[in-house]
Amino acid sequence: MTPSPFLGELLGTMVLIILGNGVVANVVLKDTKGNNGGWIVITAGWAFAVTMGVFVSQAFGGYDAHLNPAVTVAMAIAKNEYSKVVSYITAQMIGAMLGAITVWLFHLPHYARTEDKGAKRATFCTEPAIRSTGSNFFSEVLGTIVLLVGIKGIGAVTTGLGPFAVGILVWAIGLSLGGTTGYAINPARDLGPRIIHAIMPIAGKGDSDWQYSWIPVAGPIVGAMIAGLLLL
Amino acid sequence: MTPSPFLGELLGTMVLIILGNGVVANVVLKDTKGNNGGWIVITAGWAFAVTMGVFVSQAFGGYDAHLNPAVTVAMAIAKNEYSKVVSYITAQMIGAMLGAITVWLFHLPHYARTEDKGAKRATFCTEPAIRSTGSNFFSEVLGTIVLLVGIKGIGAVTTGLGPFAVGILVWAIGLSLGGTTGYAINPARDLGPRIIHAIMPIAGKGDSDWQYSWIPVAGPIVGAMIAGLLLL
Amino acid sequence: MTPSPFLGELLGTMVLIILGNGVVANVVLKDTKGNNGGWIVITAGWAFAVTMGVFVSQAFGGYDAHLNPAVTVAMAIAKNEYSKVVSYITAQMIGAMLGAITVWLFHLPHYARTEDKGAKRATFCTEPAIRSTGSNFFSEVLGTIVLLVGIKGIGAVTTGLGPFAVGILVWAIGLSLGGTTGYAINPARDLGPRIIHAIMPIAGKGDSDWQYSWIPVAGPIVGAMIAGLLLL
Amino acid sequence: MTPSPFLGELLGTMVLIILGNGVVANVVLKDTKGNNGGWIVITAGWAFAVTMGVFVSQAFGGYDAHLNPAVTVAMAIAKNEYSKVVSYITAQMIGAMLGAITVWLFHLPHYARTEDKGAKRATFCTEPAIRSTGSNFFSEVLGTIVLLVGIKGIGAVTTGLGPFAVGILVWAIGLSLGGTTGYAINPARDLGPRIIHAIMPIAGKGDSDWQYSWIPVAGPIVGAMIAGLLLL
Repeated sequence: MTPSPFLGELLGTMVLIILGNGVVANVVLKDTKGNNGGWIVITAGWAFAVTMGVFVSQAFGGYDAHLNPAVTVAMAIAKNEYSKVVSYITAQMIGAMLGAITVWLFHLPHYARTEDKGAKRATFCTEPAIRSTGSNFFSEVLGTIVLLVGIKGIGAVTTGLGPFAVGILVWAIGLSLGGTTGYAINPARDLGPRIIHAIMPIAGKGDSDWQYSWIPVAGPIVGAMIAGLLLL
Repeated sequence: MTPSPFLGELLGTMVLIILGNGVVANVVLKDTKGNNGGWIVITAGWAFAVTMGVFVSQAFGGYDAHLNPAVTVAMAIAKNEYSKVVSYITAQMIGAMLGAITVWLFHLPHYARTEDKGAKRATFCTEPAIRSTGSNFFSEVLGTIVLLVGIKGIGAVTTGLGPFAVGILVWAIGLSLGGTTGYAINPARDLGPRIIHAIMPIAGKGDSDWQYSWIPVAGPIVGAMIAGLLLL
Repeated sequence: MTPSPFLGELLGTMVLIILGNGVVANVVLKDTKGNNGGWIVITAGWAFAVTMGVFVSQAFGGYDAHLNPAVTVAMAIAKNEYSKVVSYITAQMIGAMLGAITVWLFHLPHYARTEDKGAKRATFCTEPAIRSTGSNFFSEVLGTIVLLVGIKGIGAVTTGLGPFAVGILVWAIGLSLGGTTGYAINPARDLGPRIIHAIMPIAGKGDSDWQYSWIPVAGPIVGAMIAGLLLL
Repeated sequence: MTPSPFLGELLGTMVLIILGNGVVANVVLKDTKGNNGGWIVITAGWAFAVTMGVFVSQAFGGYDAHLNPAVTVAMAIAKNEYSKVVSYITAQMIGAMLGAITVWLFHLPHYARTEDKGAKRATFCTEPAIRSTGSNFFSEVLGTIVLLVGIKGIGAVTTGLGPFAVGILVWAIGLSLGGTTGYAINPARDLGPRIIHAIMPIAGKGDSDWQYSWIPVAGPIVGAMIAGLLLL
């Protein structure tokens, strides 16, 4: 395949979701080997998903390796560089949707055995621990600000260490700020797989919780705007 | 924001507390996704909080990235360089207090559901496993000495690896020396949030355990003086 | 010993299996200190096994450090370089078999106490969580593709970090894609120890599950061919 | 303090034992915050103990940073360089004994509450999961060979990464080969603290299990001789 920023963002985000949503599937679906593996497994899985997503993105031309519309928006604001926004977010959404389809196909027999509709949906998109619009929105705003401030902090790191540092950043956010809404902090990570949940014929699935769906999209975008304007 | 050592210390310590106290909140408050995540989650969260706090501090002008009055005191003694002490500690205290407020607001619905007063206080400041003034004081002195000797050991590390190494150092201290007093090893980390616990209208909070509060302040300072005089 | 690519592949794969199959033995055999250690222990053990296998392989002349016939096949296709295939795979198979014998001898008293025939076989080779030929095959194909795409992504990493990055890659695959078939993703890792299981006089062993054995061989090879032709 | 190889070996080994035996104390003694933290906590604690021990050793003049008589013996054989053996091992033994005293004083109230004599002894020295002289001896020999081959493998690593890599090596050995005898793989780590267990007035202690004590001394030394003669 010919490397390009579009391809890099797409494949990097696809790897992010295959590994990120994959670890959720391994922990919550029935009869998997990682079933009930705990919060350390979930958060480590997402951390390494980010690290590997960045490596893969860069190898296929995605030198920015945003993998996240909130990062793309924040960088556009901070650098007054808006030309990448539409193409990057398109690539990220396609990658996230392809990743979600892959995770579903990969665990097909486990979806068939899992009765809990909420567990099945959790392998696609986030759900708050306690439903509270203002507080959930604030969680996603703040988590995204910490992500972006952390990325700025990592900016000066020697090149080779960057993907490891971003993985640790996301591990930290998961461990410490993931307990309320499940740290979407990335609109593509949540909305892309939620669309797949809605349209794919998943055995015994429930509704796609659309009433909550705007929060993990708008929260990270608002966080990105705040960070882009004030902090980056 | 204009980078400066003061701003760097303040924001770095704020990130340290957001992520550090945040992981405690995620593990001990009711109905969070990380509830009951275990000691590996707590200690990993604090380790990554330190790594990210250092990165953020440096990005905003805090090239020393102490984030801890004990480190500031030890370095002042070792290098006979006292001019930074007041401004750094002021910044660290402000950052720690702002961080504690942030963690509280972030988990607001979970504080409302948590009945255990001790759990709520634990998301602000430390408490010993067994109350024993001499032994608790010794724990904080020794933990801080290990921190400072470890920082000296890391001193020769290639620049880019330093923040990772300090994170591992704090992870080690948490795993191995955190079982007695909860390893404050940082007066700002304990006193700043304790003040916030005392003054903020936290639903159903208990007392702020002021009778213990001097140990996680004096212990680390004594440890810093010993290390500064003898070891650094 | 005189370093050579053959010796490097052999010893590196032997270390991979000693540490990788070793962690399974520690978790599933009776009365070990790591018994029932959980998925984080299993996946961390395999991750570090890969990192150390690469280091050891390189130190004994295995500059490629494939340790896996799927990697050897994919690289042969991608680089049109077939001369190494037979010797590398031979070395990997010998190393894997020697590693499996070592793990068995190391835990001998624990095999004697373990009654579960499946647990004993699990210390040699993989078994699917749910038997489903098509889905199990797809799991091994996809896991291997992610491994190879990840290795491509890591390719640009500064030399010294490569073995760490590959370890994190395998950790990620274990956490996220290991829940269905136990992520063989390496024909030598599965077939070599399975042969040892079949021929060694292991106390109270069951059958060697030969009806499943082709999947963790053919799946990774098909994944390697797809990755070698399309992605590398 | 004036840096010297002797001081470096002593302080590095002392830090190794403070953090290594410390994590055991945190997990097995009664009413600690890390109580019952599991095998991942134990092995992570020892891994980081090694990393930090190496850093500290080097900072105080211990440029070799062996921290382990088995490493000293193997290197002496491999490099035909015997002049360091006596002084290094002396420093390592003193450091290990001082470290064990520190861990005991640090957790004093927890020793007082712990009734299990075996748990108290486990915070000083190793004990096999199943007593079997030949098998236990083989475990310590093989674990030490893997340690030394791993160190050889790491030898080519960029300087700054070495202490991290050795930590991961010891983490791997703990996860994968620590389930039988508790991976002493270091005569000073086991014998030094066992002597302290024997001579200190530890409340309600049992015997010091001297009948087993020769295995974690002789096993690592035999492993070191094999590795030194054949592999390094």
